[in-house]
Amino acid sequence: MKGFIHVYTGDGKGKTTAAIGLSVRAVGAGKKVFFAQFVKGLPYSEIEQIQNHIPSITLKQYGLECFIKNAPTEEDIERAKNGLQEVKNIIQSKNYDVVVLDEANIALYYKLFSIQDFIDVVHTKAPETEVIITGRHAPNEIIEIADLVTEMKEIKHYYNSGIQARKGIEY
Amino acid sequence: MKGFIHVYTGDGKGKTTAAIGLSVRAVGAGKKVFFAQFVKGLPYSEIEQIQNHIPSITLKQYGLECFIKNAPTEEDIERAKNGLQEVKNIIQSKNYDVVVLDEANIALYYKLFSIQDFIDVVHTKAPETEVIITGRHAPNEIIEIADLVTEMKEIKHYYNSGIQARKGIEY
Repeated sequence: MKGFIHVYTGDGKGKTTAAIGLSVRAVGAGKKVFFAQFVKGLPYSEIEQIQNHIPSITLKQYGLECFIKNAPTEEDIERAKNGLQEVKNIIQSKNYDVVVLDEANIALYYKLFSIQDFIDVVHTKAPETEVIITGRHAPNEIIEIADLVTEMKEIKHYYNSGIQARKGIEY
Repeated sequence: MKGFIHVYTGDGKGKTTAAIGLSVRAVGAGKKVFFAQFVKGLPYSEIEQIQNHIPSITLKQYGLECFIKNAPTEEDIERAKNGLQEVKNIIQSKNYDVVVLDEANIALYYKLFSIQDFIDVVHTKAPETEVIITGRHAPNEIIEIADLVTEMKEIKHYYNSGIQARKGIEY
């Protein structure tokens, strides 16, 4: 069965959560999932849950604890590049049916690695491997190589009324 | 902490999957989740996974095994109405921090219950309960009562090239 390339992008809520949901569904069908999280390094609630309860999802983070503020540091770049190298080995290994590259679009947006390097890695994927790329600001080059693209569009958001992000809901 | 009303709608992929991901995240933060699935009655992959591995998510289905084709049957309507009644008790009980009403927009689209009956139930929610409503065709009345609305917009989809839905990825 041919594996496809999915992209979840846009400014709305639900991109990483859709990738988590898809991972849960995939392991429910007996598949193995590698969930790579770029840019982020915090122990988010979903991470704890996945690590404690869903052993068929292997999760790795390639970011720092604090999110990039203005410009990425050298360590941000180094972690992302090392992550991309690790993903390269994973994506062609056939050990995983689904490989999630969470926030890869943000890594590209901050130029933590080049678009071409990233696409080269995605293209080394085993034919049957499904790849899920998330993050706002998906560049056109990524849209082009994708089989499925969903834009999460913010129609209404309570952040706009000054509400802070809440544990267990937003992160 | 005030609980909000989220809506995930639109023709793109990722609405139910975002609700599943949000549920996984919520239980990761120690919250309790009630996941009500309208219209659908099939044992989807995510359902098996949730039931086997995540006991803090209580899942109930209020649909038939075969999806509504042209017009809903009496049994479709009866199941949905009974479901809404059960949800009414759940949503005001304070036993759950997050209540997901998956495919409720589709139930409304097929008029399995009235918009007013549905809104009345949502409005009985305990103040701190978070409610997640999914499904394409969210009616304006639902958008209005929501605090957060994300439209999943289909930009590109391999269905258009004749690919069938695949177990573990689409369902």
